[in-house]
This record gives sequence, C-alpha cells and structure tokens, in this order.
Amino acid sequence: MAASQEERFIAEHFEKLSARLPGAFSLRDDCAELVPAPGQAFIVKTDPVVEGLHFLADDDPADVAYKALAVNVSDLAAKAARPFAYLLAIGLPERPEAAWMERFTTGLAEAQEAFGLTLAGGDTDRINGPASITVTVFGECPVGRMVPRGGARPGDRVYVSGRLGGAALGLALRLGQHGSDDWPISDRAAAAALARYLRPEPRFGLGAALRAYATAAMDISDGLVKDLDRMCRQGAAGATGAVVRFDELPLFTGLSETLEAGHGEAMQLVTAGDDYEILATVPAGQADAFERLAAKGGITVSAIGEIVTEPGVRVIDAAGNAIGFAMQGFDHFDRKF
Amino acid sequence: MAASQEERFIAEHFEKLSARLPGAFSLRDDCAELVPAPGQAFIVKTDPVVEGLHFLADDDPADVAYKALAVNVSDLAAKAARPFAYLLAIGLPERPEAAWMERFTTGLAEAQEAFGLTLAGGDTDRINGPASITVTVFGECPVGRMVPRGGARPGDRVYVSGRLGGAALGLALRLGQHGSDDWPISDRAAAAALARYLRPEPRFGLGAALRAYATAAMDISDGLVKDLDRMCRQGAAGATGAVVRFDELPLFTGLSETLEAGHGEAMQLVTAGDDYEILATVPAGQADAFERLAAKGGITVSAIGEIVTEPGVRVIDAAGNAIGFAMQGFDHFDRKF
Repeated sequence: MAASQEERFIAEHFEKLSARLPGAFSLRDDCAELVPAPGQAFIVKTDPVVEGLHFLADDDPADVAYKALAVNVSDLAAKAARPFAYLLAIGLPERPEAAWMERFTTGLAEAQEAFGLTLAGGDTDRINGPASITVTVFGECPVGRMVPRGGARPGDRVYVSGRLGGAALGLALRLGQHGSDDWPISDRAAAAALARYLRPEPRFGLGAALRAYATAAMDISDGLVKDLDRMCRQGAAGATGAVVRFDELPLFTGLSETLEAGHGEAMQLVTAGDDYEILATVPAGQADAFERLAAKGGITVSAIGEIVTEPGVRVIDAAGNAIGFAMQGFDHFDRKF
Repeated sequence: MAASQEERFIAEHFEKLSARLPGAFSLRDDCAELVPAPGQAFIVKTDPVVEGLHFLADDDPADVAYKALAVNVSDLAAKAARPFAYLLAIGLPERPEAAWMERFTTGLAEAQEAFGLTLAGGDTDRINGPASITVTVFGECPVGRMVPRGGARPGDRVYVSGRLGGAALGLALRLGQHGSDDWPISDRAAAAALARYLRPEPRFGLGAALRAYATAAMDISDGLVKDLDRMCRQGAAGATGAVVRFDELPLFTGLSETLEAGHGEAMQLVTAGDDYEILATVPAGQADAFERLAAKGGITVSAIGEIVTEPGVRVIDAAGNAIGFAMQGFDHFDRKF
C-alpha cells in the first residue's frame, strides 16, 4: 500500500522543518519527545490564528505562518523564556495548492530561523470553516524563574518596549478604515506599519533585563490599556492600577509625526492591539539598571507611567488631566468570549 | 475597570480544572510552567476535534470534552507515557450558554479524573465556523524510552488491545447508516457501541508491557488496516508488511454475534477507525511475557498476525485466502489532506 496522502503531505512540506530536533522523529511518530535542559522548565503557550480574525484571506501565506509563530513566541519573550520547539495544528477548508504550501512553509522556516525554534509535531485537518492555525510553543527558562504577569507593586515603573500603534495603523491603512486614505502618511511609514501588522517582532533581547529586574511582564496583544489593566488586577499587592502619561507613549514612527489626530484617535491606534511589544513593571530603584540591561539586549524601553493603589488604568496629558478614549474604536479584535 | 468577559469566563469555568498544578498559575498568566520529573521526558501530542468531523452538534458537551481529551491521551498510552497536563484551545461560533459550559467542563473534569491529568492553560476564541477543540497533551516517560511507531521487524507478532469495530458500529447505529436500523443488535450492545464512539478508553494499563516488550506501538485512530500499514512502512528493517488473520480479530461484542454480515462488511466496521485501541508488535519469543504483563495491567490483547517482509497489509481467512474489503466504506473519517 502506498504512503497515504497525509504522509506524503507531511513528508513533502513539513519534515524538513523538524530536522534539528531528534525528538520530533522526522514527524513520523504520533508524538514528540521533548526534554528541557537540566535545571530548565518548559514555558508553554497555545494560541490559534484564524482567517478573518487574525489574518486575511489574501495575506501572503508566508506572513500568516510567520505571524502564527510570532504571536506565540512573543509570550515566551515576555516571560524571559528561550524558544525551543513548537507543535502545529492546521485546519484548512480544502487541500491547499503547492504554491500556497511553499509560501506557508517558507514563512515557518523564516520564523524558525528568526526565533530559534524547531517544529516538533502537529496535525492537519480538512475543516468546513475558515482556515485556522494553532501553534503550541515550548520555551526554556530556569525552573521557578518565569517572569509572572501578576507581580506588579504600587510604586513600580511601567515600561513598554519598542513603539506602539504600528500594527493597528498598518491594518487601518490596508483596509482603508477610518478614513485612513486621507491620512498624510508617507509610503515608507505606511509600509513599515503594515510590516508591523504582518510580522510582529518578539522582543527576546529583553529577556535578561526582565529576569533580573521586572516584577511583572506580559506581551501586548490586545492593546496597551486592556493588557495593562489585566496586569494590574493581578498585582502582588492585590488589585492595583496604573497611571500612564500620554506624552511618554512611544508612538510608532509615522504615527506621531504625520497623523493629524487628537489624543483620542491616537489612543485608538495605541489601544487596538497586535503590537506584541512587552509591558513590564520595575521597582523605581532598579529602573536605571533595567534600562541599561535592556539597551545591552538591543531593546529600547520607555517608562510610560507608574503602578498605583487605585484600581484601573488612567491615561493623563501633560497637565495631569485624564484623557478619554474609545477603546473599541478598532474593534476587529473584539473576538473573545 | 472590571475584569474582562474573557477573564470571568475562564475563572468561572476553567480555573478549578487547573487547581492541582501550581505551574498553571490558576490560568491567570499567559503561559504555564511545566517541568518533567527527574529522568523523565515530556511526550507531547496535539489533535483537534471539530464539529461535523469528530463529533456532532447535538452530542452531549460532556462527551465532546471527554473525547477531545481521550483521543490525545490515547496516543500517550500507546507510547507508554503517563498523562500529566494539557492545554486547551477552544473556538466556538458563539458564546456558549451556561448549561453547555457546565456539561463541557463536567466532561473535562471526568476525563481529568479518569486519565490523571490537569489543565495547564489555553485559549478561547469566537470563530466564524464549526466548533473546534484543540487539545495538546503532555505525558511523562523515561528519557529515550518512548515506544516508537517505527520499530517493527519481520517475524514480530502483531497485537491489538481490547475489541475493534465498536465505535464505527455505534456511529452507524446512531446515524442510521448502512441500513443499520435493520441490524439485529440488542439495545444493550447498541448502547455499548455508542459509548465506545462517544467515550474512547485509552489503554494505560498496557504501558508496562509495551515498554518492556513492544518493538513498535501506536493507537488505532484511523482504522486497523490504515494504521497497521503506516506502522509497517516505518519498520526497523525498512518498509515491511503484515499478515492479519480475520478469524483472530477481536470483534466488538455485539458485532460478531449479531451482525449478519460477510467478511467485507465486518471489515468495514473494523477499518473505520475511532476505536482507540493499541496496535503493537512484539518479538515472537517475548509474546507470552507480553501477554502476561498486559493481563497484569488489566488489558486483554489479541495476537492477530505477523510482520512480514512483503510490503502492504493482507487480511486472510481461515483457508489463507486474502479477504477483499472496501476501506472507504465508512468514509466520514476521510478528512485528511
């Protein structure tokens, strides 16, 4: 009996992606064997990306694959864990064409190279619904040293890596949302924004600084305010809150300069999510050391506010007045139960 | 700001399922921390179940949840790994009602209890498609001792655990397929068959015997012949084949006695899949010891044939003649690429 279609499909498209990992058994067994290095724990996370929610039908399959890995690896980066391996469950409405698979696995290979991880196993199904790609990532981290989400204390400084709003800007420009056709954005800035939406950059370089100094960290997937609020509600001192200074927010290049928008509109982009930057809290006395170690890892961090005892997240202007904003402005991310 | 809908949803329905596992962080972090015991590897596997393919819209959500775990844990049982933890990614077309969630998490709790594993983390999404439940399981096994799929050698005996054909019989009866309304099956046998379809029983009890004596093992998810053929094509001596004696097949109770069918029709049920019994190969000289250790674990095993050098799987009758059968008879499982 000849090899089944599924076996040929896996051998042709995926086996090469598992080559570096003996425990993947060339994807020819039902299970993979994964062993963390001595003294290391596995930090694990699973997150699906679904067509129509997290990517669009006409996206380059290489970008879809890259993003499916990036959004999971971003969580590892926020926990100061080193990417190691991943499982991949794909559901597609029909058998993909060879050219699609070629682009898709090219994106996986590029992400593997960029993030330093290897395919360990997975599953393929034909489903009667939108394409869905579920990645489960495994990272390594010294046992008991994972940077938690819930360790923030009043007085801690709130930091964010990189720049915010790029992904939402890129998506708005691409879809012509919110009158973005009229925004005076240069082609170069627009391309950079779209790249942020398509290919998030997990911030591994921040790992050493996070492990040394952060009381709490998480990646920003659902927008700055939503995710900071989540972090605060699980603070080490019980529920806490945060004050964020709008003027300190590191807006994505091309956003602050060219978007003739009020606070509210800029906040919509900043709170729309998909930036995959890292949010971290650091005791004030260790802020300088944190910034130095972050810079050593090649990551720019910005102090954007403080953890306070009063619950909730308040964004204030230079005069100290609260800025109101409509957090549901870019509500394509309102996809949770 | 109040807890988000998603946070309440997780706290209300899922947090209790993670209670025994400190590394799950009560499902309040983005990642889980999992550490195998000293000398143990993690054996991992991911497999989605999708409405319309693996379960039906009017199935009891408790059965759906139980099966989503059982089909994954069954792979661990075939590798002689002990279930430890799992991740759960759920995609549902709309926010489920409280009663549905109650039944769903009851099924998860029952499976956790039966299989000895704990929820470590996951994700919930609202999707524009059929309900989909993707489980990733973690089992423990001594490093380097996972029972492989590809170790069968010519001369090895082929064993199968339990009885075959029950799941396909149960589904056929339930859907009234293939004229099953006219089959002279007792109510009791029909109920048992349906239970096999709804709640597969992973064969943990076979772990010690597999690790001690099996050259190869896998669970039967896609039908005896398909899966045995897969196993043979990755044999230790290069591609091998198998001869199976029809008269030795342990047919599901109620199938052999009451189904007035020829070989071909019985083979359709046996090759239809979803039985989740274990297929194993054992050197002839160790067959007795294997059977004794299996019995000690409470698992009945049947020697159904031998591994041979000629590729392909041949099923023969008592006279040694090959039995023809239409493997695609119950083709609702033809869902792979």
